[in-house]
Amino acid sequence: MSDHETPMVNGVVEHKIGEEVLPFVEDEYGGVIVEMTTPTYPKCFVATLRYSFTQWRSQGKKGVWLNLPLSQVNLVEPAVKEGFRYHHAEPTYLMLVYWIPESESTIPLNASHRVRVGAVVLNHNKEILVVQEKYGLLRGSGVWKIPTGVVDEGEDIFAAAIREVKEETGIDTEFLEVLAFCQTHESFFVKSDLFFICLLRPTSFDIQKQDLEIEAAQWMPFEDSASQPITHKNELFKVIHRICSLKMEKNYTGFSKKPTTTFFDDKLGYLYLNKQDMNNLIT
Amino acid sequence: MSDHETPMVNGVVEHKIGEEVLPFVEDEYGGVIVEMTTPTYPKCFVATLRYSFTQWRSQGKKGVWLNLPLSQVNLVEPAVKEGFRYHHAEPTYLMLVYWIPESESTIPLNASHRVRVGAVVLNHNKEILVVQEKYGLLRGSGVWKIPTGVVDEGEDIFAAAIREVKEETGIDTEFLEVLAFCQTHESFFVKSDLFFICLLRPTSFDIQKQDLEIEAAQWMPFEDSASQPITHKNELFKVIHRICSLKMEKNYTGFSKKPTTTFFDDKLGYLYLNKQDMNNLIT
Repeated sequence: MSDHETPMVNGVVEHKIGEEVLPFVEDEYGGVIVEMTTPTYPKCFVATLRYSFTQWRSQGKKGVWLNLPLSQVNLVEPAVKEGFRYHHAEPTYLMLVYWIPESESTIPLNASHRVRVGAVVLNHNKEILVVQEKYGLLRGSGVWKIPTGVVDEGEDIFAAAIREVKEETGIDTEFLEVLAFCQTHESFFVKSDLFFICLLRPTSFDIQKQDLEIEAAQWMPFEDSASQPITHKNELFKVIHRICSLKMEKNYTGFSKKPTTTFFDDKLGYLYLNKQDMNNLIT
Repeated sequence: MSDHETPMVNGVVEHKIGEEVLPFVEDEYGGVIVEMTTPTYPKCFVATLRYSFTQWRSQGKKGVWLNLPLSQVNLVEPAVKEGFRYHHAEPTYLMLVYWIPESESTIPLNASHRVRVGAVVLNHNKEILVVQEKYGLLRGSGVWKIPTGVVDEGEDIFAAAIREVKEETGIDTEFLEVLAFCQTHESFFVKSDLFFICLLRPTSFDIQKQDLEIEAAQWMPFEDSASQPITHKNELFKVIHRICSLKMEKNYTGFSKKPTTTFFDDKLGYLYLNKQDMNNLIT
């Protein structure tokens, strides 16, 4: 159905009730995806939706995805009343879903994890780059910690580590390895958290701290950072400092990055693996 | 404000318009979190919301989180018309957000990643556990692949790998290591994908395949799996088989798991790190 075939009343689509199926595309799992891009009256929407369901049921369709842009917020309540449930939301749209079959739903779960990075940056004087934060759980505690931050949507882990260090301290870096990662749950509402501890090599040394979130930043003698009380109390601080000690003596191997392409569409991704052990095989 | 102080009309809360602030709790970042648990008329909601904003503005509040359970779907449209934007949604609620200050929003991003696992299960006969899937991109292709699946909300990576193997093939396993992981983008709507390749040790050997999603399952001689055409064409298949080859000769170290506790609330999490290199330090 293209727009010019649809009767418009004051710029709002008036579907011929009971005769039309909502515009949809099929997915790879026997389902349909509907994106409501045109302003529609709730009454027309519900009638067309009900007719669509009679068609989809008879065709054996399974999941029905309904994408409602923010501008179509007037259709959220009618959709829920017709039996749709929320699946996920982004600032500009809400995705709802309806499972047609009697069998158990195989609708994939919503994105479940927030991803964060912590950046270990060591210089040649055995100093580590650390900050004090203005907000969050450590504010006002006097604790010096490595720069950390949330990975943006669509951002690579290694790129996020480089960006966070630059933003918080002004230091330029190169990514070397993921040293370790940590998974915890219910850290951000119901979402889980994956925290990747990355090792970076500094390529500049003059600190210019960011004012919005950072109280202070410095190159701190590694031993001073390791001897902070929190390093003994907190498992994560302890492990980071132990790995750093091993790393400075070249006795620890993390995961390096290797560009790769995704399955069928040749999009670029990154593999993280023990490249040192792979060296004889991967060129 | 507790419920018994609130006048009720037919079970719906009638706020004293313009005199009450919506019930809220403060977050750690100068914001407020409102959860609308009681049925409310849109008109009352909007009036109380507007009055609340005058209070929150004068108190210098920043982000306003608005949690609307599915049963309060009638408040979604009024909230959006008052300037709220979607933040995230789960099947039973929609979270909206409003940033009060003139300065740039520091509202944290929504969960950005879906997490998947792939399970490498090798037996003592140099055979690898593989399946053919009924759905998805490889259906009907004749390709034998390792069991894979999505990590459930709140589920540990290692537990998800064990569960997926059990569900798809009936085989019991123990988790050994994360061999590598892969990050790709826009793999599930706008969300990114983190795929953890796990090595598991089988503790049972009789295959009982699941019928819903699995076409076939078998223990396949590793060399036969490695010589499938897709292993040469697809980077991820290639890397998995190369790591397996090294692993069978004990020449590859991945990340093992180590229980840990989170920062301040002592919740259990898991660290994944090169335990072999850490052996002298972590007990």
